[in-house]
Amino acid sequence: MLSFPTLVREIPAYNLVPDEAVELIHRESVKILEEVGCEFRDVEALAMWKAAGADVQGTRVHIDRAMLMELVAQVPPEFTLHARNPERTVKVGGKNTIFVPMYGAPYVRDLEGKRRYGSLEDLHNFHKLAQMAPQLHSMSSIICEPMEVAVPKRHLHITHSALTHGDKPFMGIVTSKERAEDVMKMAGIVFGDEFVKDNPVVVSITNCNSPLVWDQTMLDAMRVYARNNQPLILAPFALCGASTSASAIGAVAQVNAEALAGLAFTQLIRPGSPQIYGQFMVTVDMKTGAPMGGTPEAAQMMFVMGQLARKYNLPWRTSGFHVGSKINDAQAGYESNMLMHAAILSGANYIWHVAGWLEAGLACGYSKFMTDCEQLGGWYKYAGGLKFDDFKEAMAAVREVGPAGHFLGTQHTLEHFEKAFFMPTIMDFNSFEQWNAEGAKDHDTRGRDKAKAALAAYEKPPMDQAIAEALHEFVARRERELPNTVS
Amino acid sequence: MLSFPTLVREIPAYNLVPDEAVELIHRESVKILEEVGCEFRDVEALAMWKAAGADVQGTRVHIDRAMLMELVAQVPPEFTLHARNPERTVKVGGKNTIFVPMYGAPYVRDLEGKRRYGSLEDLHNFHKLAQMAPQLHSMSSIICEPMEVAVPKRHLHITHSALTHGDKPFMGIVTSKERAEDVMKMAGIVFGDEFVKDNPVVVSITNCNSPLVWDQTMLDAMRVYARNNQPLILAPFALCGASTSASAIGAVAQVNAEALAGLAFTQLIRPGSPQIYGQFMVTVDMKTGAPMGGTPEAAQMMFVMGQLARKYNLPWRTSGFHVGSKINDAQAGYESNMLMHAAILSGANYIWHVAGWLEAGLACGYSKFMTDCEQLGGWYKYAGGLKFDDFKEAMAAVREVGPAGHFLGTQHTLEHFEKAFFMPTIMDFNSFEQWNAEGAKDHDTRGRDKAKAALAAYEKPPMDQAIAEALHEFVARRERELPNTVS
Repeated sequence: MLSFPTLVREIPAYNLVPDEAVELIHRESVKILEEVGCEFRDVEALAMWKAAGADVQGTRVHIDRAMLMELVAQVPPEFTLHARNPERTVKVGGKNTIFVPMYGAPYVRDLEGKRRYGSLEDLHNFHKLAQMAPQLHSMSSIICEPMEVAVPKRHLHITHSALTHGDKPFMGIVTSKERAEDVMKMAGIVFGDEFVKDNPVVVSITNCNSPLVWDQTMLDAMRVYARNNQPLILAPFALCGASTSASAIGAVAQVNAEALAGLAFTQLIRPGSPQIYGQFMVTVDMKTGAPMGGTPEAAQMMFVMGQLARKYNLPWRTSGFHVGSKINDAQAGYESNMLMHAAILSGANYIWHVAGWLEAGLACGYSKFMTDCEQLGGWYKYAGGLKFDDFKEAMAAVREVGPAGHFLGTQHTLEHFEKAFFMPTIMDFNSFEQWNAEGAKDHDTRGRDKAKAALAAYEKPPMDQAIAEALHEFVARRERELPNTVS
Repeated sequence: MLSFPTLVREIPAYNLVPDEAVELIHRESVKILEEVGCEFRDVEALAMWKAAGADVQGTRVHIDRAMLMELVAQVPPEFTLHARNPERTVKVGGKNTIFVPMYGAPYVRDLEGKRRYGSLEDLHNFHKLAQMAPQLHSMSSIICEPMEVAVPKRHLHITHSALTHGDKPFMGIVTSKERAEDVMKMAGIVFGDEFVKDNPVVVSITNCNSPLVWDQTMLDAMRVYARNNQPLILAPFALCGASTSASAIGAVAQVNAEALAGLAFTQLIRPGSPQIYGQFMVTVDMKTGAPMGGTPEAAQMMFVMGQLARKYNLPWRTSGFHVGSKINDAQAGYESNMLMHAAILSGANYIWHVAGWLEAGLACGYSKFMTDCEQLGGWYKYAGGLKFDDFKEAMAAVREVGPAGHFLGTQHTLEHFEKAFFMPTIMDFNSFEQWNAEGAKDHDTRGRDKAKAALAAYEKPPMDQAIAEALHEFVARRERELPNTVS
């Protein structure tokens, strides 16, 4: 089974705004944290801030810019994220980029194109597809919700599926302290209890509740993971115009403040722990209040967040193919590549939601999943930059062929054709006549065909028998212990 | 009728490769023209080259780099392209960008989604849509071929349609000297015979026959237009891997040589005449030989051509939404924005094929046309850059709202919401339930609905009665004079 290593970007990042603008935004962000402050709705967190010397008033923490930047500076610029198969271990930060499938969809667009609730079988399927896609560097976690599983027990089955259907790095659960602890125990079974106290194996998302609130649930999860040196993504989920001001720059400054406050807190938990600065910013449809996907402002804000991340020298996360479109149609395509182009050029390290995303995250589509993975192959090539190594030979071929000739038979072409250009297979470049003869299938249909074929060919990666049994036993025990309903 | 002025790019261009790489490619390009030479298959052109001092051997012209660059340096970096309505006059070059709909499709995807030959009615329709789309800066010309019109007479009806259905700048015909002259006569009727001898009103495409051949037909057209100071696009249509080597960099160096040779020739015709450097480069599907559309290499090559254009200080053309997809589906969307993102960031001045293109140019789609125009609105906003003018107010809104509030009711939001973010209407961001209740239409269907509505609302722009009659008489007379079959 082929697997792409960590993408090492060989192309320069794009700076949308001048350095002075980045500094201006930074100054406004830190001013907000000093003057307005940020809520930390958790007694323990407030005590930690107080002990560190912050100005705490009720649940409001005012963080002085010197303290803030001193804490943020402790976050390592790069870290290794371990997979249970060492060949799938990746690097996050610096010039390294990884691609991570989507997370959190209650619905699926299924193999027949119908929309319905996600199930445990769907989740298994998506984890199989994530494992098989050479372009993906992670299993993610809740690609879709297994809706038939009782909420208090879902995290067990989600984590079990991610850990057993694939051998790539995975993601954690953050919905309660106890669930986060279960994830760490399961990781311990697979990687060894001692190993997971210090070595990153699982990445978890903690969202700020914009504007400027870190809730207790998130702070609980932060403590569980950060204490074990497991990286968190500190990424406000911003609905620009609703949870931020109706200004792209204003939204960036606010989200930056929120992310920095969260990052700083992780360093109170464990100084030097690896973390991921990040953003998820969508604009809001004025008519309906619905989040949009691939809009020009989303791309612009991404570029500026990338510039801030480079200023702070932090690994950072953004999202790739996240769209508002309900189905895998033209809208989905336009939205997807509006964002992915920006994600790649803004030098993001952890590009999330790059497989399956539809409907502003409410649905994961099988066809979209396969489409996205194929496209990632193109982006991998794009970010690898132009190769000059055969330039001399190529120019010799021009001399050999001369005016009015063609290059198909030259030695250079025969040697380089296969690798010279990206060659997708779900995309169709046949003649109209051939395409028509094959059923005139649209891209959505071809993507579903591809998913069916992939699932039929899936093979489970090997896992030590004792580990597999221990995992199984853990899940079975916790199943018995946990209630079926949320109290 | 709203119309966007020339887009003035407020964002930096992206340099994919370092300056030394640009210099290296330049050196290889000029070496090719010196050592291999370029064919000019036309007695008059060869005589002109000889008179200018080039080394001419048979039809092969070896152009010395000093002479080449001296000629190219005479091309103005920027020019004004006049419309018959002065409000639609645009600038090409420098920071200015214009959007031009597609050209040359024998087929259409019609208002019901069916594929069939293009007709004169379709051409009229597309010209109406081009006129009505505020995002487009040109009528183009042969948006689709009017297949029922005899080939020797088509140029009359195409040009008549472009000149009468809209009042934006238009494009010329290059398939013979006589046809090009007819276009100039028709332009003379509309703009005044004296005016069109010196002032750019029509842009024409002359393609090099890659590798390294300029054919007589193209050279004939060049003379007709360049003598009248009308700009040409010198743009090899390169099928990378077939008409160039299977190397992205090798292809760029070759295409650059071809474009420079053509540009230099235009300056022999009329020194200082405005011209457009350009490229149209697609990779070739290894399995079928078919041209592909939005691939990573196409984007990479575009960036480097942009860097070369800036080195030479030339206005330059690339293509935007050109795709291999047969229909307006997810593939079309992914391909379109792969290329448009690169076109915008590479600082292109004349972005062509930005409305309607399907099937590697074989078909123009009504739905694709409307989809593309809407997307151009987003790209217009994107390239306009981020606005800092309300940053202070936006930060004041953050202070006003504070943690845990929301921004929907603030004064700043009320004042800025409508203009802050791109709000498309063919794209659908409604809830699933609302979208479903409205018929669960895919983007392709919504695009066709939009085209129908637009056509129903079309109003012809005014034209002086005498001019309209003279144009009509010219077409009628030439109809009588010209044969129905190609001799």
